[in-house]
Amino acid sequence: MSDGANSVARARRAVEARWAHDAAARELGMALETVEPDTATVSMLVGADLVNGHDICHGGFILTLAETALMLACHTDAREHDVQGTQITFIAPGRRGMRLLAQAHARHRGERNAIWDVSVRTETGEAIAEVRGHTRRTG
Amino acid sequence: MSDGANSVARARRAVEARWAHDAAARELGMALETVEPDTATVSMLVGADLVNGHDICHGGFILTLAETALMLACHTDAREHDVQGTQITFIAPGRRGMRLLAQAHARHRGERNAIWDVSVRTETGEAIAEVRGHTRRTG
Amino acid sequence: MSDGANSVARARRAVEARWAHDAAARELGMALETVEPDTATVSMLVGADLVNGHDICHGGFILTLAETALMLACHTDAREHDVQGTQITFIAPGRRGMRLLAQAHARHRGERNAIWDVSVRTETGEAIAEVRGHTRRTG
Amino acid sequence: MSDGANSVARARRAVEARWAHDAAARELGMALETVEPDTATVSMLVGADLVNGHDICHGGFILTLAETALMLACHTDAREHDVQGTQITFIAPGRRGMRLLAQAHARHRGERNAIWDVSVRTETGEAIAEVRGHTRRTG
Repeated sequence: MSDGANSVARARRAVEARWAHDAAARELGMALETVEPDTATVSMLVGADLVNGHDICHGGFILTLAETALMLACHTDAREHDVQGTQITFIAPGRRGMRLLAQAHARHRGERNAIWDVSVRTETGEAIAEVRGHTRRTG
Repeated sequence: MSDGANSVARARRAVEARWAHDAAARELGMALETVEPDTATVSMLVGADLVNGHDICHGGFILTLAETALMLACHTDAREHDVQGTQITFIAPGRRGMRLLAQAHARHRGERNAIWDVSVRTETGEAIAEVRGHTRRTG
Repeated sequence: MSDGANSVARARRAVEARWAHDAAARELGMALETVEPDTATVSMLVGADLVNGHDICHGGFILTLAETALMLACHTDAREHDVQGTQITFIAPGRRGMRLLAQAHARHRGERNAIWDVSVRTETGEAIAEVRGHTRRTG
Repeated sequence: MSDGANSVARARRAVEARWAHDAAARELGMALETVEPDTATVSMLVGADLVNGHDICHGGFILTLAETALMLACHTDAREHDVQGTQITFIAPGRRGMRLLAQAHARHRGERNAIWDVSVRTETGEAIAEVRGHTRRTG
């Protein structure tokens, strides 16, 4: 394989090991879509169990989706990191029946600290939320 | 009833109506603990379905707990508000078996915009996360 | 002029009117570098009056530089906006003698609310700080 | 002196050493008001050099004021800390002639990381801005 293909394969292996342990994300119906070095995309269907009485997705689940994508993206380097914090801005409500995609990528990756952007969109590209996250390498 | 008791009763009624619609929060096992004007406390047990393979609570559920407390606190005035965004800082991991308490209270409440603090702690008072949230009155 | 050139010229005019009033930014030695629709770049030399005893730029001035770029970028549409808030992450210290460049661009521009990214870098591209900002159209 | 008086005196000495080096803050006309363990208050007059053409204080200077109070509060323990980042929400404009007070205090102080709240108010108590900051002990 080329170096590029190798690094994608390594990123994918590192993330899949972590994903396998994330029962909580899978129980919410999340699916791991794409992985490349420093980036990951996770999807989630807004089903009946994720909405309030107005068929609007609880903001916490949108946060959980974004957090999951962020956590996977930062571990594409196969090292250990803690998420120190995240800031989310809600743009439009997630509605029942929508499939949401959260794509995380590194804005800045330093020796220990990294800054991440996560965009949550619908399948047709409508903006739902924007997240900025911070991680720190451990150990 | 005194004015104080009246305002607490009104806050409680406003929040309970909203809570009744929040099936998602209840399915995560959250319980509404206390409500007063501009403040609300919600608890959540970190059960087996909320943890990853290391028995650590997925950060997204801590966010969801905090978001729920914030959403209820801002609606104690019986008006409609949107959560515009939140910023969370993780302090210590939530572990399986812990009961977490998220207490939201208003730091600043203006005519339309409000700023909120949410502290997530264990039952014994250990700090788990701190959240700052922003809401805007609608309509 | 082409449509593109026209829109750049309009953005530039809108920003220059605002810049002309910003005596504070000019007194800090800031210079308006580039303007295009939804983006602006401002520079600042870290002179003797901006540093502490260790020749490190006071973080507040880096914030001021980023805030200035953000404020100009959001006004490239010649409408009125308020900056509602900003979040800055410091990556590396600004040192005496450095010329810092803050480039603001829109991450999301809705009907009223917009989300902005501002990157502060040295002339050689070293990352100094990353800012996320929120604005709301007034009137 | 009592233990309490001793700890206040120690905090004051630690902060004054740092303040003496902060020529930038003093050139903006800031004054160190009060210091106690884990808290500090700094004031700033919104003079002609800090406003734009509408006699509104440049948001960057309000950020600088808050950042200064935060930086001093975190050093009341006489150890070294870096400000990792801050998030500011603007509530009301600072106007020419106002004296603004920024009061920083610790919300959470861990072994290395700390979370801070900074409230910026007028002398009569009107809310101008609220800031959340994060610091990390170095060395």
